[in-house]
This record gives sequence, C-alpha cells and structure tokens, in this order.
Amino acid sequence: MSGDGSESTTWALRVAYDGAPFSGFARQEGQDTVQGRIESAVSTALRHDVEVVGAGRTDTGVHALGQVVSFTTEADVPDAEMLRRSLNALVGEGIAVTELRRARPGFSARFDAVSREYRYRIVASPVQPLFLAGLAWWTNAWLDVPAMAEAALPLVGEHDFRSFCVTSSAEGVSTTRAVERVWIEPAVELGEHCLVVGVVGNAFLHSMVRVIVGTLVEVGRGARRPDWVAEVLEARDRRAAGPTAPAHGLTLWRVDYPDEAFES
Amino acid sequence: MSGDGSESTTWALRVAYDGAPFSGFARQEGQDTVQGRIESAVSTALRHDVEVVGAGRTDTGVHALGQVVSFTTEADVPDAEMLRRSLNALVGEGIAVTELRRARPGFSARFDAVSREYRYRIVASPVQPLFLAGLAWWTNAWLDVPAMAEAALPLVGEHDFRSFCVTSSAEGVSTTRAVERVWIEPAVELGEHCLVVGVVGNAFLHSMVRVIVGTLVEVGRGARRPDWVAEVLEARDRRAAGPTAPAHGLTLWRVDYPDEAFES
Repeated sequence: MSGDGSESTTWALRVAYDGAPFSGFARQEGQDTVQGRIESAVSTALRHDVEVVGAGRTDTGVHALGQVVSFTTEADVPDAEMLRRSLNALVGEGIAVTELRRARPGFSARFDAVSREYRYRIVASPVQPLFLAGLAWWTNAWLDVPAMAEAALPLVGEHDFRSFCVTSSAEGVSTTRAVERVWIEPAVELGEHCLVVGVVGNAFLHSMVRVIVGTLVEVGRGARRPDWVAEVLEARDRRAAGPTAPAHGLTLWRVDYPDEAFES
Repeated sequence: MSGDGSESTTWALRVAYDGAPFSGFARQEGQDTVQGRIESAVSTALRHDVEVVGAGRTDTGVHALGQVVSFTTEADVPDAEMLRRSLNALVGEGIAVTELRRARPGFSARFDAVSREYRYRIVASPVQPLFLAGLAWWTNAWLDVPAMAEAALPLVGEHDFRSFCVTSSAEGVSTTRAVERVWIEPAVELGEHCLVVGVVGNAFLHSMVRVIVGTLVEVGRGARRPDWVAEVLEARDRRAAGPTAPAHGLTLWRVDYPDEAFES
C-alpha cells in the first residue's frame, strides 16, 4: 500500500430506483438516466470524473431493487458508510444507494455477475390497482396460473433465446443464455393482489424478461396452449413470441456475485 | 317498488387512494379532496347532485386501501359493475373505486361501521426506502419491537384517549374509544423491510393512530420505558404523549359493517 493516495480501489454500489422518471439506466447525452445520475454523484463526491458500470442496462420505465454498479477511484475513501450517505443525497429523487462495498481490484458489476433475478408484477383483475399502479401491468383478463407455470418449463436451461430478444443481434453475437429458474406466484403487495413472474438467469437479452412475460400471458389468458412456448423457443424469431409486456411491471430484483468478488 | 324511478337506493363504495395529492378526505371549498372528487364523480354519473359520507375523515397525506363511502340516489342503477367502472374513470388519478355494493335503506358508511383498521408503516434503518418512500415513515433509529409491543398492551380496551387526540375536543364530547387490537410486526413490502403497526377499534379520535405510533416509537427508540404508555393514557392530556407520526405512513386499511348492512 502506498500512502500517497495513488492506490486505486474498486467499489460496488447497490442501488434501487423507480424507473418512471428516467430514460433508462444507460447514460445518454441530454437525457436523465440512472447511470448519468450515479456518475455525476460519484464524481462530485470523489472530486474527479468517474465512469460507472451497471450489472443490467434496464430500459426506460424498468425499476430496480438491487441493481449493482461498480467504479474505480484513486480517491481516499476513509469511511464507506459516509460515502454511501453522500452518494444517496447526491443522486437525488427516485434513486436510493442502499449499499456500498469494497470490491476486489478489477471487479466489474457487469462481467463478474453470476446471476440476475428479475421480477415482473401483473394485476389480473377487473379492478385496477392503486398503490401498485406504477409497479404492475394491469390486465382485465383472468389468467390461468397453472397453465402459465407449465408453459414456463421449457424456458429453463441453456437455450438460444433469439425469439425473446427485441433488438436484432449483430452477426455472430450469441443469443444463447442460461435460465436457472422461472416461477409464477400469487402475492399481496401493499394490500393489493398480484401475480409475480420471477426469472433467474446468468444474463438476459434485450427485453427478454418482458417478452417471456408477454408470451406466458398469452397462455394464461387462453389464447395459446402451454406447449406453444417450446415452439416459440424453437423458432428463433421474435415474431413467433407474444408481445413485449410493459416496462413498468418489471424490476431488476437482485444480482449475485461470487463471494471472492468483494473484500472481506 | 314503484316503477317511476323515484324509489331511492343506498350504495356503499369501497375506495383506495394515495393521500399525497389530496387535501385530505373531507370536502373543502377550493381544495382537491377525496370526498369532493367522489361527489363530483357520482353526481356526474347519476346526473344529479349527490352528497357522500365516508367511514373515516382521513387527514391530508393519509392513504386508504379500504375507505368506505355511502350515498343515496333516486337514479336507476341497472348495472352496478358498470357504474363502478364509470365512477372509477370519473374520480381521476390517485383514487380507485374497488367495489360497489347495494346497502340497506338508511345505511351510513360512517355511523354503521362497527370497526376500523388502520396500518402504519415504519422503515427503521440507516438506509432510506425507495418504493416505500411515500408510504412509510423513515427513521434512522433502531427500534426495540418487543418493547413497543409491551407498551401497546394498555391501549387495548375501552379508554379515554384524550392524550392521543390532536384537536381539543368540545366540552361534553366523549373522547372514549374502544381499541380491539394493536400489533407490531415486521413485514417486507415491494422488497423493502418495514414495521407495521396495526390498530383496530370501533372509532378513532383525530390523529389518534398517529399519536399512538409516535408514542410507541418513543419507547422503541429507548427514550421511554414501556410502562410509560399507561401513564400517558392516565394523564388525559395531549402533552403527555409522544409526537404525532407523519401522515404518509398511515393507511385506512379496512372498515367493517354488520352483514345485514348490505343487500344480499
């Protein structure tokens, strides 16, 4: 360790945000983005320009409970909790910095993530949600939950998820991803009933969870049979799948890393 | 039954609302209130001026999941579900009409209520809540939940709750109320940890639940001992109790009526 402050350290922030006010996670010139807000906060707190890397590039309107963001700095950080509170104050409304941990040198929130969990809320009722209005997709349709659960089974495992990817991928870029788990469960949040579709995987294609949800809802409302989902997967064509579910129902729930990613 | 439409019918609406945008429940000239919005919606839908009565006059900022509102009309209501949807559309943002039931003649949402349940959310953590920010009182203090539960015990039963009432009551008006149940439990809502203080009683004085919560939090943070609450009750003086907890943590959760209050 050199005492002159030139030793760089790498940090991982866990952040929660409401997707509604932001033009997504990824920094864009002239737009209010989560990455832009965090970079500005970290740069102000540490008094030099800092670039941050996020575990998931959430789209406009998508929320996060456990997004993870990393950055490297040569600035001294004598008190991590004090820095977390400063960042929390500096990022402004709609974002909360919930944790700050020292990471091993070279840590990347994006490349070191071993799994990501997304949760999607649906309110299937003739009665609109009030407290969940901005946090769930409201549909008047009655949904057959066991049929949706059956339909989700073929998604588990390593597959080419091209049918579930909104942007056409560049030549030679793999659209194979490994989904560990998909589940559908009824829940009560803030006193309102909803369905939660949870998906855990190593990584996700653009809008993949939202297309999975849109596809499962086609089965849930009886427009398709559960075994249709295996055909959709096989087709490797976005047009084969159901619609993209709206952004505001989706939350990046948590991101996992190996224990050794962090300083103990 | 007369066929000329002059037979009046009485209706009970269940409504949910976000307290933030409204100047409370009770109608006030020139203010955006929940009662004002509902009266305007019902009057528009039924094409005559209608006054509505609410089970609880929630203060500015207080939310409701299960507020009940009654009104009487001579207008024909051929399809209650269609009326509910119209009202839901007419009340505008921040209010949801979740149920419409035909009540017995003379029914009053206020006077026929046999019990009211309020829930108060507290986030006790150095980390601020994000999704619960507008729905919970955030305090940095660590709270001793068993001490709070012990402190709440003397509140159960029929007592003079004058110490827990914010407005000075008029001469001769009773401040005796019956509290059926008070409980404190940890909960997870929208992925964020909170404490819920629940209170069920026959009726409540102005700000009574918020003063109860403010008083229990004094015990929870160690400023007072649990047996202090019995002294507060005994004092019959608002100055004896703890502070009034902020409005945005409170939700009017449900209101109960005898089964015979409604047409079957």
